Amino acid sequence: MPVFTEFSSSSRELRVLPSFAPPLPRLSPKFTQPSTSNGEKYEVVIVGAGPAGLMLNLLLARYGLSDDSLLCVDSKPSTLKSGQADGLQPRTLEVLKSLGLSDEILTEGCQMWEVAFWNPSDDRDTVIERTSIVPDVAVQARYPHEVTIHQGRIERILETDLLRYSKRGVERNTKVVDVKIDEEGDEEFPVVAVLETVSQDGEQRRRTIRSKHLVGADGAHSVIRRCMGLKLEGESLDHIWGVVDLVVDTDFPDIRRRCAIHSPAGSVMVIPRERIVTGDYLTRLYVQVPGAVASDSNSNGTQAATKDARARRSQVTLEGIFQQAAASFKPYQIKPKYEGAVDWWAAYQIGQRVAGSFTVKDSKGANRVFIAGDACHTHSPKAGQGMNVSMMDSYNLAWELIYSINGLTPDAGAGVGSPDSLVDTYHTGRHTIAQQLIEFDRAFSSMFSGKIGASGDGTTSLTHDQFLEVFSTGNGFTSGCGIEYPENLTVQKKNKAGKNPIKGTDYLSGILRPGRRLLNVKLKRHADACRRDLHEDFPSTARFRILVLTSTDLLDPRGKSAQSLTALTKNIIPSFPDQLIEQVVIHPRLPRQFTWKDLPAGLKKYSEMRFYSGHELDDVYGIYGVDANEGAVAVIRPDGYVGVIAELSDVDTVDEYLGRCLRRV
Amino acid sequence: MPVFTEFSSSSRELRVLPSFAPPLPRLSPKFTQPSTSNGEKYEVVIVGAGPAGLMLNLLLARYGLSDDSLLCVDSKPSTLKSGQADGLQPRTLEVLKSLGLSDEILTEGCQMWEVAFWNPSDDRDTVIERTSIVPDVAVQARYPHEVTIHQGRIERILETDLLRYSKRGVERNTKVVDVKIDEEGDEEFPVVAVLETVSQDGEQRRRTIRSKHLVGADGAHSVIRRCMGLKLEGESLDHIWGVVDLVVDTDFPDIRRRCAIHSPAGSVMVIPRERIVTGDYLTRLYVQVPGAVASDSNSNGTQAATKDARARRSQVTLEGIFQQAAASFKPYQIKPKYEGAVDWWAAYQIGQRVAGSFTVKDSKGANRVFIAGDACHTHSPKAGQGMNVSMMDSYNLAWELIYSINGLTPDAGAGVGSPDSLVDTYHTGRHTIAQQLIEFDRAFSSMFSGKIGASGDGTTSLTHDQFLEVFSTGNGFTSGCGIEYPENLTVQKKNKAGKNPIKGTDYLSGILRPGRRLLNVKLKRHADACRRDLHEDFPSTARFRILVLTSTDLLDPRGKSAQSLTALTKNIIPSFPDQLIEQVVIHPRLPRQFTWKDLPAGLKKYSEMRFYSGHELDDVYGIYGVDANEGAVAVIRPDGYVGVIAELSDVDTVDEYLGRCLRRV
Repeated sequence: MPVFTEFSSSSRELRVLPSFAPPLPRLSPKFTQPSTSNGEKYEVVIVGAGPAGLMLNLLLARYGLSDDSLLCVDSKPSTLKSGQADGLQPRTLEVLKSLGLSDEILTEGCQMWEVAFWNPSDDRDTVIERTSIVPDVAVQARYPHEVTIHQGRIERILETDLLRYSKRGVERNTKVVDVKIDEEGDEEFPVVAVLETVSQDGEQRRRTIRSKHLVGADGAHSVIRRCMGLKLEGESLDHIWGVVDLVVDTDFPDIRRRCAIHSPAGSVMVIPRERIVTGDYLTRLYVQVPGAVASDSNSNGTQAATKDARARRSQVTLEGIFQQAAASFKPYQIKPKYEGAVDWWAAYQIGQRVAGSFTVKDSKGANRVFIAGDACHTHSPKAGQGMNVSMMDSYNLAWELIYSINGLTPDAGAGVGSPDSLVDTYHTGRHTIAQQLIEFDRAFSSMFSGKIGASGDGTTSLTHDQFLEVFSTGNGFTSGCGIEYPENLTVQKKNKAGKNPIKGTDYLSGILRPGRRLLNVKLKRHADACRRDLHEDFPSTARFRILVLTSTDLLDPRGKSAQSLTALTKNIIPSFPDQLIEQVVIHPRLPRQFTWKDLPAGLKKYSEMRFYSGHELDDVYGIYGVDANEGAVAVIRPDGYVGVIAELSDVDTVDEYLGRCLRRV
Repeated sequence: MPVFTEFSSSSRELRVLPSFAPPLPRLSPKFTQPSTSNGEKYEVVIVGAGPAGLMLNLLLARYGLSDDSLLCVDSKPSTLKSGQADGLQPRTLEVLKSLGLSDEILTEGCQMWEVAFWNPSDDRDTVIERTSIVPDVAVQARYPHEVTIHQGRIERILETDLLRYSKRGVERNTKVVDVKIDEEGDEEFPVVAVLETVSQDGEQRRRTIRSKHLVGADGAHSVIRRCMGLKLEGESLDHIWGVVDLVVDTDFPDIRRRCAIHSPAGSVMVIPRERIVTGDYLTRLYVQVPGAVASDSNSNGTQAATKDARARRSQVTLEGIFQQAAASFKPYQIKPKYEGAVDWWAAYQIGQRVAGSFTVKDSKGANRVFIAGDACHTHSPKAGQGMNVSMMDSYNLAWELIYSINGLTPDAGAGVGSPDSLVDTYHTGRHTIAQQLIEFDRAFSSMFSGKIGASGDGTTSLTHDQFLEVFSTGNGFTSGCGIEYPENLTVQKKNKAGKNPIKGTDYLSGILRPGRRLLNVKLKRHADACRRDLHEDFPSTARFRILVLTSTDLLDPRGKSAQSLTALTKNIIPSFPDQLIEQVVIHPRLPRQFTWKDLPAGLKKYSEMRFYSGHELDDVYGIYGVDANEGAVAVIRPDGYVGVIAELSDVDTVDEYLGRCLRRV
């Protein structure tokens, strides 16, 4: 192409880079580090760079907090290299996709589509037999499977993306030794943390920093939790687990499926894992050591109990795990495929506990210190929840915190350090989820151990059908797709008019419901006929979205669809700060062909590339439970959960809901 | 998760990185740079780091050539920042996906699904009307749409991945000033190139290097082509084009569709483009200046003709492009959306020409110098082919060259510098495609200009139906999915037994055919029930694959399916170097349930994670034209094109085909 005349604008230089997330508008004054004499200060300090801490760090950086404003420290020298969590649930995959971070995970992780249940056979020679195979994910989801992949890889993916937004990244080799709230010293930055950094030559350096908010994402033995006097509540007894990652040689036919094997010789859980550099595929095996031991997490065990736990733990060896596995797989053979095929193994002790509060407030009632992830809930690994619930804690906290910090909430105008009721919803929302998590885990773990009853060694036998039922009914929860946040400032279960435009209650199949995440659907875009996933219009950029499902009268300029769209685009959206609210519009089958000139002007202005046919690909109205003749309107929170639903003409409900969450201009 | 006993193997450190492509085995001696006194030498030197050069560089690096062995130079200081190509065709998207490089392109590029044709209306007030809308891609493909995205971004994506495999990357600011073949000076490294590097302070440094092979991917004005005396052949007349990228404000209803607008006032092509950082979407407009001018590419124009061309080119201005666009869009309005909305514009001159030979051989007949991309074919931008055909040149050359260099071909054992017939297929294969490209482009361009006839100003009017037919029949070619390589060493259109197990000839819908790419299908994997794309088992790692479509007798140990699988896995695959051949197996609906123990042992050994049900998702046998009662076996070349097809029991054909391409152990 022999070009001989050419012009290009300087902005084209940006074209070669991957897109950056657009930062959130900021109405509060921009924060910059004070001069050194005035001490080191941040708006947010995050302690711990595991999945919960990194996710929070990345989100806040994407939303617009600079290195001046945001600090994340971690005591380890690098991201995790081995073991620990390995499962990503469908809802977590949706969230990672909404951040543009799912491709490597979906392509190179192990997609887990089915679960096989193996139980004792009546035939003595057969020993165990496959009782059933069921889908691993039984609910509607954009990705209807789990993915297993090494936790360190998730952390590396999050950190690599973080470094596009943050020059500093995570400050490593740095731990927090003390935290307290001191409002008298500095009303605006009342959280005081003492950090200790170990330099490369082993020298320790201490410094004290102040912040508006501090988040403890520092794991099950959280220093932040201890310093703030928050207590884990729950059972006093733990279970001991053995886990091994390896390349196996086996004739067991379901080795590439998730399996719950209950054999006469014991129980094993099989988790297929990703392909590794040798071209082989990993397998993870879980075995549980029978019986319970004294708690390790709170120091409320007696000396004798602690001693007993230590003795029992020390009995777990790699050979012991293999012995139990080999016995449980009989008559099938299972062994490491070659010398060095064992990748990682561990034994650990864990119980079900949850912190009574996830935040600590100052004297005025403003949330100052938060805990997230393992710091606020511990549970068994069996349901593959840990990394997921932890990242989702951060996913919930991040947008609430940034709205408050950026001065975008109604409360944010009330002056320095005043409480913000939007941020209160972190505890109310996530504590509810954590409670559900440990209750499910308790039931599932007990059942997995082959006994009925919360703990101990009750002798009632469990039937396969009972186990299957717990598994299936729990699937809405374990997949992350059936989570329902309770009523609070951002979740309004009843609308103003009191009329619910939604028919049906099968929320797991997509019926709209305040507090639940909006299910993805496939649509055809009006402007360009692009076949798209609705979720593509709900990226994690912390925007509120109004989802309008118009009725069949859309082409009537005086119909309710046109009137609602006009009210939304002329009055409601412009009354809030620019670029905070996006409008997505779906239409049902309409009586005739049309172009933009047949539609309300505000539709093209606000939704040219977010306006879809909802009947040519998926039956969107059917899936969401909306009558095409009536339509409906919903507000979707920045994290993809439905905030409120109203009849199409009831735009007042939308206006009032947004007015409670957002500051007006 | 309070771990208290933990072991991890050192290989786990690799787990956190994205996977690397496994290098190809090498039977020839490993190459290292000679000591400095002996001069700088490479196995392959690539000149030019546009899409063709970068693609070749990346592929050879992934296949295992180190920086010692491989050098790519480019005269520019960085990747392209502006303009030029913007279209990726479905086949190119498949190839980029097979390299793990498609996610950003698919997510952030503009997916182009439909084409609208606008023509003069009988109603004078209407002026122009939409005559039809057709799918942009009318053939079966994994991604049934084009993607438009800035060429510089493609280059950046290729280069970023290259830097995972190469420490040096592209040597910038370096051009080739002379190339020649000198066998007497060094029989093994006969290609002599003189490079000139401009340092940051503007100083020029010359050096002479030698290589086994040199590839000119240095564009339409290729220095390599000129130095080697290769000639572009074709018409002596060019056309002049104006093109502009901008954010438009318009009431034209199809602005987000690809459009061919033939209005009484002139012709415009509309190409919707990707979203940019402002949140706006780009649009590209092409206008053609009527009439032809003397050629620019070969110096065979007279002085007067050159002067005429220059005068005509200088008439093209941004205002001129807008004027023609505005006139052609009437009665619709079109203008830049805001000050600075024009991103880039250019005017250029181009004709249809192709080089007579794509390679230059030494005196023994070994291919030493190659040209690829714009260096060997020039054509109009209208069919969106340039970047695609160029990258596919490299995609074809790369695996043929590495097989020869790594000593994996039958000819490679014949001694230093002997000819390799596998490499001969580069010219025979790609020259055929280039010829088809310029023939299609000539027809399409002439038609687009609104006249019938190869060139000149014939006055016969074109009907809309005729135009639509050229567009539709050309779609197999333009999509890249209908390309058929001619019979040669790697494409065997008849098998030994002379019986074709394939029914049907609708190759664009997936019917198997030697020389055409294997269409992607959706399958369910036996081992883990994973729903997968077959293309996932055909990554661009330069391996040959045997695709076995078993018959319904698979469960019969003495059936033809079992016998063929046994012959393949016991005799044929092991007779070739390890890790060069992979086996993928698909089965039709079988008479009963089964596990691994009901299947031939070699199946699990070679294909545990590449064995699929071909009837539960897509009807694979129907799509490929294979009778489920008979089955079939095919060899797929490393670039995804079918090499040979045989009846299921005719494994001799497979063995002989592989024996012609590959060295036996």
